Amino acid sequence: MEKKTIDQLLRSTWQAIARMYNEEASKYESTMATGFTLLSIDPKKGTPSTSLGPKMGMEATSLSRTLKTLEEKKLIERRANPNDGRSVLIYLTERGKVNRDVSRVAVLKFNQAIKDDIGEEAFENFHNTIEKINNLIKNKKVFNF
Amino acid sequence: MEKKTIDQLLRSTWQAIARMYNEEASKYESTMATGFTLLSIDPKKGTPSTSLGPKMGMEATSLSRTLKTLEEKKLIERRANPNDGRSVLIYLTERGKVNRDVSRVAVLKFNQAIKDDIGEEAFENFHNTIEKINNLIKNKKVFNF
Repeated sequence: MEKKTIDQLLRSTWQAIARMYNEEASKYESTMATGFTLLSIDPKKGTPSTSLGPKMGMEATSLSRTLKTLEEKKLIERRANPNDGRSVLIYLTERGKVNRDVSRVAVLKFNQAIKDDIGEEAFENFHNTIEKINNLIKNKKVFNF
Repeated sequence: MEKKTIDQLLRSTWQAIARMYNEEASKYESTMATGFTLLSIDPKKGTPSTSLGPKMGMEATSLSRTLKTLEEKKLIERRANPNDGRSVLIYLTERGKVNRDVSRVAVLKFNQAIKDDIGEEAFENFHNTIEKINNLIKNKKVFNF
């Protein structure tokens, strides 16, 4: 079998992480999308609904579906922005804050497990490589020369 | 702003790659999903339709939609498996083979650009780290202790 390319590695690893998070979230009758959304909302100041999509890299339609579910589960609330009547801020409810903490612990556990396993140096190297890959893409250096 | 966690890095990097590939594919009136599917089909022996989904980490419904599009564009053909009348093999047409090569060149270009940019050692380190992350997930060592 051929050695996997970097894009395949990133894709399959991200998929494995998503499966793992969804499995863990299911113990709390939740999903990765839910946890990820809660983590993207500022627990003190709330977050404008329009900035959530770009922040999470999610399309508007699937985000609004997730937000609807979170609202039905009483994990978030929508309130008018006091500084801009036309825009809406998303706030966490008390229950939403608790669930956010559960998600946060899961994320930190996973990242600490990786750090413990690979060591500080490899962890730094990994960050650097990822940054370089993103810069290559951002500077459109791959296909335009 | 907080430092990104490993899962965020992998997710956002994979999304950036997907955007880049889709942008490049659009020059050929194609998509990343198309190129990725063509690359997953054996150009000589064909590939059983049932093994494509697991191989690509794609759900059956979105895969069958992609295959339908590829068939309409005359890039693939379905034929009965000569060794098993009940199963179907997917073959590339001549045009499909050409498009597969275009996709292959794009993937190789990207991977070579990364290799050139980060160097051999960082490239090996990156592979090792990714492998360790996948083993952590596979061995369920993250949440079960």
